[in-house]
Amino acid sequence: MSDVRVAGTGLTPFGNSPERTSRDLFAEASITAFESSGVPRDDVEAVLYGNFMGELSEHQGHQGPLMAEAAGVQAPATRYESACASSGTAVREAVKRIRNGENDVLLVGGAERMTNLGTAGATEALAIAADDLWEVRAGVTFPGAYALMAQAYFDEFGGEREDLAHIAVKNHANALTNDKAQYQRAIEVSDVLEAPPVSEPLGLYDACPISDGASALVLTSESYAEEHDLEAPVAITGTGQGGDRMALHDREHLVRSPAAREAGEEAYADAGVDAGDVDVAEVHDCFTIAEVLALEALDLEPIGEGISAARDGRTTADGETPINLSGGLKAKGHPVGATGASQIAEVTDLLAGEHPNSEHIDGATTGVAHNAGGTVASATVHVLEVTDR
Amino acid sequence: MSDVRVAGTGLTPFGNSPERTSRDLFAEASITAFESSGVPRDDVEAVLYGNFMGELSEHQGHQGPLMAEAAGVQAPATRYESACASSGTAVREAVKRIRNGENDVLLVGGAERMTNLGTAGATEALAIAADDLWEVRAGVTFPGAYALMAQAYFDEFGGEREDLAHIAVKNHANALTNDKAQYQRAIEVSDVLEAPPVSEPLGLYDACPISDGASALVLTSESYAEEHDLEAPVAITGTGQGGDRMALHDREHLVRSPAAREAGEEAYADAGVDAGDVDVAEVHDCFTIAEVLALEALDLEPIGEGISAARDGRTTADGETPINLSGGLKAKGHPVGATGASQIAEVTDLLAGEHPNSEHIDGATTGVAHNAGGTVASATVHVLEVTDR
Repeated sequence: MSDVRVAGTGLTPFGNSPERTSRDLFAEASITAFESSGVPRDDVEAVLYGNFMGELSEHQGHQGPLMAEAAGVQAPATRYESACASSGTAVREAVKRIRNGENDVLLVGGAERMTNLGTAGATEALAIAADDLWEVRAGVTFPGAYALMAQAYFDEFGGEREDLAHIAVKNHANALTNDKAQYQRAIEVSDVLEAPPVSEPLGLYDACPISDGASALVLTSESYAEEHDLEAPVAITGTGQGGDRMALHDREHLVRSPAAREAGEEAYADAGVDAGDVDVAEVHDCFTIAEVLALEALDLEPIGEGISAARDGRTTADGETPINLSGGLKAKGHPVGATGASQIAEVTDLLAGEHPNSEHIDGATTGVAHNAGGTVASATVHVLEVTDR
Repeated sequence: MSDVRVAGTGLTPFGNSPERTSRDLFAEASITAFESSGVPRDDVEAVLYGNFMGELSEHQGHQGPLMAEAAGVQAPATRYESACASSGTAVREAVKRIRNGENDVLLVGGAERMTNLGTAGATEALAIAADDLWEVRAGVTFPGAYALMAQAYFDEFGGEREDLAHIAVKNHANALTNDKAQYQRAIEVSDVLEAPPVSEPLGLYDACPISDGASALVLTSESYAEEHDLEAPVAITGTGQGGDRMALHDREHLVRSPAAREAGEEAYADAGVDAGDVDVAEVHDCFTIAEVLALEALDLEPIGEGISAARDGRTTADGETPINLSGGLKAKGHPVGATGASQIAEVTDLLAGEHPNSEHIDGATTGVAHNAGGTVASATVHVLEVTDR
């Protein structure tokens, strides 16, 4: 079984670029990925691409071959759609293909164009990740769903808005050095608490923004990396995927994420690590409460204790296990289809010592990326490790 | 490398059921697939599902976990979207997973709800499989694109509308015994020639209908099939995928399908067969001209000669290589996301002697399924063979 190397990473700036199409965005991200990898386009054997709402935001489906073309690659291309976990799913499939010896070089990534829909339009489009018949028609939007989860968490374990505010503050602080981040701006706990409510108990600063952006990765087999003398010290060593009932009301708990737990356990076992080995992680903080649930699902915090992790400094940049050193979805932005692969890019750069925030994790060898779809009806988790090389 | 067995197949009727959701349709198809397989739902390790336009027709993305739920399966689920080749792509991935020993039992299929959009709405939704910027905005719809291809074919190789009409007549004749087909009704060449024009030279009977429907397959490893003593005599022995430029104007030829050729060559080589071994095939005849191009891309007819295959009886039910014994997309119907997996179901039943049209292919051992997306910017080809067992 071949090791899977992250040979190149590319991200567009995340933010507001309503005039740019997904193909513009993905072309840019792929240029950076190819340049940083040293891999020629002609060696790419397939393109695996995540996108969520292209049908609604730019009347464009069938984006697989379109994105291969945008990246200058002639190879079969497939689009994966698992809501906000779309490109995490594409990465997982790519990892399996390379490991199984089917492919040596793959271009993987995702893109999303959202801001052209406006905030209300994008929120409505995002709702297609929930159950249209039993949630959306009853008025459930994602801010509403995560607000329910936050309130249920407070009811079951305690905690308060101020705990969540520390997560937003932390992720904004982390984004200060990330020139791809949508918000490179520090905020205070009071800013979060005084922000307009979105869906109580969540306010505006508990939510990630609507974003445009793209991510691209060049993944290669270990043997290809060695033969071509690539600078690719980080490997994806574990992959996991989980699933859950689609609608919140069909689940046993509002404040557990069994899909993420399943994905995490599978990825840890696959890599031969456990949660205690994790030095750094990017988790899917579409809302502040989502970061709490992710930490608990990944066993990075005990159930019921994730709420205090940021406030008590365990997950801050200089804490025990820094979380979302990129700024996370909260401050870096969340162009849905791009997010999963962008997390892999961030963890790779962090572990390789090529990230502005690498200084906070000196000697780190093991990272995790957690990507979730909907209210975590889908999840993928990947483990990345620094190789000996 | 494990052989991949088709243990169970399930199809809904294809046709008009605008009141039924994709989940209704997929639930029905999966019930039949499980019942015909003898495989318990609990053994399913993942769901791979194709859907194309759910965002537009029922405001529902993230259909992977929803369909797992509809099928009564608790397992990670992924949606694949490659326009009309969506579930062909899902099948391909499933085949690879089982072969590589990653999984023993997978539920694969697809669904599409279309007729609730009406004909104009569905045609507009289908257009998202073309290039929005450079084709759709210039007024290109799929009937228009395939009409261009038909005219270019006539110009390069000769042929006339009457040749195409024989394809429609053949496929309608084949559908007479298929109780899942949208049209169980014989037509004459004169019906086709006198039908209203859709986009010249194509008329109404040159086009497949707008359809609702779902397909499901239970695929297992050879070892699982043997251990559980399943009646599963047909194996998927070859898989291939190809890609091409998205827009027609970016291609060298209007009347070649390099994506299908690439997919076919890969699938034949993978199975260790060649075109001469093929006893029966289901090809993607979204328009009559598409069947011609598919036959040529698969080397079932020489370039420039596919046009006369139906007229001269080479591809009719009692011809040398019967094509679309199910009725094809033309007469059986084309619920986009369901089509690729439904073709696998038809070829399986045909080879297993369990299809009403199996009598036409007595002793057949090798079948092919060809699924195409857009104007063949995506294609998958699968080879199926009767095993010794």
